[in-house]
Amino acid sequence: MTAALTLGRRGQGRVWPNPAVGCVIVKDGIVVGRARTADGGRPHAETQALTQAGDAARGATAYVTLEPCAHHGQTGPCAEALVASGVARVVVATGDPDPRVSGKGLNILRAGGVEVNFGVCQAEADRDLAGFFLRVREGRPFVTLKLATSVDGRIATRTGHSQWITGPEARRVVHAMRARHDAVMVGAGTARADDPSLNVRDMGDVPQPVRVVVSSDLNILMDGKLAQTAGEQPVWLVHGEQAVPNDWVAKGARSIAVPVSDGAVDIEAALNSLGEAGLTSIFCEGGGALAGSLIKAGLVDELVVFAAGLTIGGDGTPAVAAMGIDDLSLATRFDLAEFRAVGPDTLSIWRPKT
Amino acid sequence: MTAALTLGRRGQGRVWPNPAVGCVIVKDGIVVGRARTADGGRPHAETQALTQAGDAARGATAYVTLEPCAHHGQTGPCAEALVASGVARVVVATGDPDPRVSGKGLNILRAGGVEVNFGVCQAEADRDLAGFFLRVREGRPFVTLKLATSVDGRIATRTGHSQWITGPEARRVVHAMRARHDAVMVGAGTARADDPSLNVRDMGDVPQPVRVVVSSDLNILMDGKLAQTAGEQPVWLVHGEQAVPNDWVAKGARSIAVPVSDGAVDIEAALNSLGEAGLTSIFCEGGGALAGSLIKAGLVDELVVFAAGLTIGGDGTPAVAAMGIDDLSLATRFDLAEFRAVGPDTLSIWRPKT
Repeated sequence: MTAALTLGRRGQGRVWPNPAVGCVIVKDGIVVGRARTADGGRPHAETQALTQAGDAARGATAYVTLEPCAHHGQTGPCAEALVASGVARVVVATGDPDPRVSGKGLNILRAGGVEVNFGVCQAEADRDLAGFFLRVREGRPFVTLKLATSVDGRIATRTGHSQWITGPEARRVVHAMRARHDAVMVGAGTARADDPSLNVRDMGDVPQPVRVVVSSDLNILMDGKLAQTAGEQPVWLVHGEQAVPNDWVAKGARSIAVPVSDGAVDIEAALNSLGEAGLTSIFCEGGGALAGSLIKAGLVDELVVFAAGLTIGGDGTPAVAAMGIDDLSLATRFDLAEFRAVGPDTLSIWRPKT
Repeated sequence: MTAALTLGRRGQGRVWPNPAVGCVIVKDGIVVGRARTADGGRPHAETQALTQAGDAARGATAYVTLEPCAHHGQTGPCAEALVASGVARVVVATGDPDPRVSGKGLNILRAGGVEVNFGVCQAEADRDLAGFFLRVREGRPFVTLKLATSVDGRIATRTGHSQWITGPEARRVVHAMRARHDAVMVGAGTARADDPSLNVRDMGDVPQPVRVVVSSDLNILMDGKLAQTAGEQPVWLVHGEQAVPNDWVAKGARSIAVPVSDGAVDIEAALNSLGEAGLTSIFCEGGGALAGSLIKAGLVDELVVFAAGLTIGGDGTPAVAAMGIDDLSLATRFDLAEFRAVGPDTLSIWRPKT
């Protein structure tokens, strides 16, 4: 199952809106088929692994990270394909909350005379597939918020100078993280200040994530990198309903209009629209205003903090904008999940307090 | 030598203005004497260990973390005592930069027919004795700056609410750190806002550090904990030359007047005065203004950052006050020396970039 999970993880950022599933088929101690959900979401892991196995599937054990699908979509259900292949046993890590599948996939297997072991490495699978689950259950993608700050929590000097706070090792980890998400997201202020590319660099041949820019009024220069490359790598603009995205659409960008409140895009509506558009995971890289509204709305599923060994001082740009918190009991709390050094910097990963 | 270093460390915060030295005497594989510099700085480690060893010192090996003293002070020189004891060999970790000792201690040993091995565990000893060395060489104490912040670098909400950002485990580590320093230091703003005790709690029977408050105008309430307990545990006020410390002195506090520039105490002059008064190490616990001026002046020898898993936002109180940095190349950089989780929080320790 660990091999199947590792395989499945390789599909992260590549298979949305589908789940990144891994499947390994073992016969007499020998791997006879192994696959992950293909880029774009099809074919599914199981059908590819079964094709590889061919007749060897008969009597074999299939390890699948997610309950095999039970519904007739663009292809036949994987549960039926597994039964037809003659596998003797299917080991499943976790269940599919999609109402078209939930429990039905396992029932098809059992009805077909296949032995089913459910719940092996379930916690790991639940974490790997968290974005897919969130989208199915709540209609929104998993949100990872990244902050790259000085030890005193600044992301730029008072004049906006921000290159570089963290070192090349941290930036490389950031590119790997971008590649594992369906989309990278920034606010308009960051798009204006940094003119970022938001692509994945130096990671070999990986699909590039969707680039999401959140801007109530679309006050973003058209001669920046995002506008200029919108035809090559997707740019999705989440903007207020009053803003006119024509110039951007002409460049190849996708327009997603959402309500505005207090001058800022309604972040919950924004994420729901992005979920509807198929995204299961988003890597948000700031700036402070977008970070603050995500945290305030309780929409940060993972907080990734790179801290560099320098101090910028209280007149620098804060990593998280004003949140109007008076009492500490009102601040959103996170549990530490991971802590390590990355080159000269520290990386701490936090998840919402349970 | 490791045992001698450990012994020596136990004297940290207890022996100023003297160095916290450890000494272990070994004869035929058996420890016949072991001691550290006594509280208050006397007697020295070597004389105590020699007393324990008695006749067993003859032909033994003495491990000392610092070059034995060569000058006649309140007691005779340790180097001469070692020769007189008949030890065959003295292993010394590092040299004493005090011009009354430097090299002379080793020469007395060699002239007395004692074999000398110098430089064993020198790096560790240099670190342990860094405060003593700084005071001898530059006239100022070693400065540890502690910041206890949210992951976004805040030490309080916009209304000043700061209890508690970090957890009880981090606070316990802070008390242990206080106990290892000669003094704890805060700015007047922190003294006003938090009314701290700045003592060492729940650490058993440890000597309490001197409590230093830096305040240009002595605008600190007399009914606070510091003023009320100034007779029990030392309070030293480092204040502007114009301020009148009479009320505080009447309470038992010590007054140290230093020049003021731009409305703030000249921090370099302040540290020199504290060094002159005998302190070899200071644990500074903020606030942001004092932290900022120490960093700007290049006077932070160790930066200790506790970060808690919560965000307060840009309207909270910054850990480091405005420093007027425009370009990142002008920001003071630190190297990561240590990092670990402390309860629910992270602890990272940084030292000036080498």
